[in-house]
Amino acid sequence: LLPGRTSTAVNEDIEVLVMLPKNNSYMFSIARVAPAIEYAKQRLKIGGGLYSGLHFNLRYEDSNCGNDALFSLVDRSCEKKPDLVLGPVCEYAAAPVVRMASHWNIPVISTGALASGFSDKEKEYSHLTRISPSYLKMAEIFSAMFRHFNWKDALLIFDDDKEERNCFFTLEGVHLKLMEEYHTVHIAIDTKEEGLNADDIINYIYDSEVVIMCAGADVVRDIMLAVHRRRLTNGSYIFFNIELFNSSSYGNGSWKRGDRYDSEARQAYSALNTVTLLRTVKPEFENFSLEVKRSIQKAGLLDCDDCDNINMFVEGFHDALLLYALALHEAIRNGLTKKDGADITYRMWNRTFDGIAGQVSMDFNGDRYGDFSVMSMTNTEAGTYETVCNYFGVNESFQMLPVFNPELFTLKGRHRVHHTDQPD
Amino acid sequence: LLPGRTSTAVNEDIEVLVMLPKNNSYMFSIARVAPAIEYAKQRLKIGGGLYSGLHFNLRYEDSNCGNDALFSLVDRSCEKKPDLVLGPVCEYAAAPVVRMASHWNIPVISTGALASGFSDKEKEYSHLTRISPSYLKMAEIFSAMFRHFNWKDALLIFDDDKEERNCFFTLEGVHLKLMEEYHTVHIAIDTKEEGLNADDIINYIYDSEVVIMCAGADVVRDIMLAVHRRRLTNGSYIFFNIELFNSSSYGNGSWKRGDRYDSEARQAYSALNTVTLLRTVKPEFENFSLEVKRSIQKAGLLDCDDCDNINMFVEGFHDALLLYALALHEAIRNGLTKKDGADITYRMWNRTFDGIAGQVSMDFNGDRYGDFSVMSMTNTEAGTYETVCNYFGVNESFQMLPVFNPELFTLKGRHRVHHTDQPD
Repeated sequence: LLPGRTSTAVNEDIEVLVMLPKNNSYMFSIARVAPAIEYAKQRLKIGGGLYSGLHFNLRYEDSNCGNDALFSLVDRSCEKKPDLVLGPVCEYAAAPVVRMASHWNIPVISTGALASGFSDKEKEYSHLTRISPSYLKMAEIFSAMFRHFNWKDALLIFDDDKEERNCFFTLEGVHLKLMEEYHTVHIAIDTKEEGLNADDIINYIYDSEVVIMCAGADVVRDIMLAVHRRRLTNGSYIFFNIELFNSSSYGNGSWKRGDRYDSEARQAYSALNTVTLLRTVKPEFENFSLEVKRSIQKAGLLDCDDCDNINMFVEGFHDALLLYALALHEAIRNGLTKKDGADITYRMWNRTFDGIAGQVSMDFNGDRYGDFSVMSMTNTEAGTYETVCNYFGVNESFQMLPVFNPELFTLKGRHRVHHTDQPD
Repeated sequence: LLPGRTSTAVNEDIEVLVMLPKNNSYMFSIARVAPAIEYAKQRLKIGGGLYSGLHFNLRYEDSNCGNDALFSLVDRSCEKKPDLVLGPVCEYAAAPVVRMASHWNIPVISTGALASGFSDKEKEYSHLTRISPSYLKMAEIFSAMFRHFNWKDALLIFDDDKEERNCFFTLEGVHLKLMEEYHTVHIAIDTKEEGLNADDIINYIYDSEVVIMCAGADVVRDIMLAVHRRRLTNGSYIFFNIELFNSSSYGNGSWKRGDRYDSEARQAYSALNTVTLLRTVKPEFENFSLEVKRSIQKAGLLDCDDCDNINMFVEGFHDALLLYALALHEAIRNGLTKKDGADITYRMWNRTFDGIAGQVSMDFNGDRYGDFSVMSMTNTEAGTYETVCNYFGVNESFQMLPVFNPELFTLKGRHRVHHTDQPD
């Protein structure tokens, strides 16, 4: 990426509007992501490399997680439009911003906007590049497993907050991926408003094979406890939970609460598999990680758990600036300017480059290929989890690791109950 | 409205951005609505009345029925923001425009944006005034009937085009209104993509009492034919179709196609009731109607059926300008200016004024009260329809007319089939 020659360096000032929430409860808040973007900027500048002539003027605007993003874009852009937008992440913030930016021929790169609707780049989302794998990409690990293990039937259970709707969008991706070949049923719950009615859910599970959940850790635990008490963790059903964004903190501790149900929960979780992002780390990542943590500590960020965790969003925005630099440089060398937003956008698509944590491959549609893992309990005494299989999006390969236990992925013979949908 | 005194007239130039589709296939296209707005403008100007000092500069922009509306608003507003926005009508065009305008403190008056989501004026839709009754208002006639006739159970069937989604939004209103007190089930069909599977629908009907449909005339006919062939038009079920916008052309001819199913369809439709807008006409309306028709004929509009039909949208935008003039005049007299968008907006709410076709009552939330009718077949030989009951939103009164036949609204005793949702 950064060869030591300047002969083809180009000079350009680039106005970047970074649209992220100020609120640090978001894993992708301005304060948490800014150090990564600054790191990328410095990296591009130093060393007298190809990109050292690109001067990025970064302007951070509070996108919040909704309409404010659009207002902020429009109000800031009346006099002078930015050359690049980084963010927003939240779907409802991203949608109008991407539409507006596409209309203005401004590239947008986001680590979010993961919902399936954004895949349609033909029209309103034409200038969107997604540098993190979307929910549709994540869903590929499920279609790989359905094919491999010959499952037929999926029940999708999602906790829908009706606001950011992350779980709705997450399982929408799975639904869209599976629906053509498999029978899928989805049920929405709203535990915030209505609590959890486990009996309702159990009734749907009776009729299913593979149960895929997206919900908060406590809701998943309550469902698994209810499932276990109905003896549905006996192998006749396969359970998945999706936990994309805090995979490091998820995994082996999730059943544990220090309450009197821990032992039961540990048993229940032996039937629960978790789909997470597969994240790689290469040597440079260590320095990046240290630097970002240092900046965040220096800034005194104390209002979030895990504030200095280098998550997918932090990492992705770093890589976003790199990818843009690659594309812009190429465009300028080809006689275009930073204002040729559509061209710069297409140059970011269908290419592979070295990101801060490893190779980043973008598909022909400007969406990053994703690698995902399944974690299962490998020690039922201790209740600890390990990665048992991996899926690599770029070549669609599904690999089982030595600890993989086929038992857990085989539907045991059982009396299948079929409901009649109509009276005779 | 137009008293002959000038003592309190105020002078002001008002920039109005009218955002409607150019495409005349929309009943609310620019060409079809503009004459009504111009008529209102002239009416306000002449006669030396209170509003004669208000100079409206009308600017028409193609909103299309989607994102273009926002782009157009933003692109036109960078230099100078309008003082008032009229339109957009389509939900997906209106949503971002209303959000942006509310953010900019600009009043928006629309005859559309009828979906339930727009009822929440607390935040993003704060500056929206709806001068036509929303789907939630329409739903009141159903809750009035459910209460009056003691029905318990509603099946909502809507044809969802996944684009403008008028039928989705129409029945969403009914669902939201009925769901708290009654059992409601909804099924979406997509006849454009998937055709009509009448058997599927019939199975749902078996389990219901009151069937409420929103779909194109041919789809409704196909469903009613299927229903009739299963002998479900025998009085054990009650059927409604919702047909808000072309009530004059709907009604008594809808079963007729000139094909070999006409006779069967006529019989089937004897069990079908239609909910429509109740529209009143007062003497002034005649002149308005003539003028608008004349303008439209002069403009040579030939690319639409029924181009010169004075529909709810045409009428509503006329009244919108009147209502704005009332509110603005009042605001200025109270020391405010046209830039006090929120104040002007609130002055349009919770008031009654004389519209072109009759009294217009706005509720405290800035949404117009609605009057609706039910039409039923009163002559089964001829297959003709008449209005059999009316609902008046402003006082929530439900009135049955002399031709009302209670038979048609009484669920006849029948074997109720209850599905078990779970195996035992």
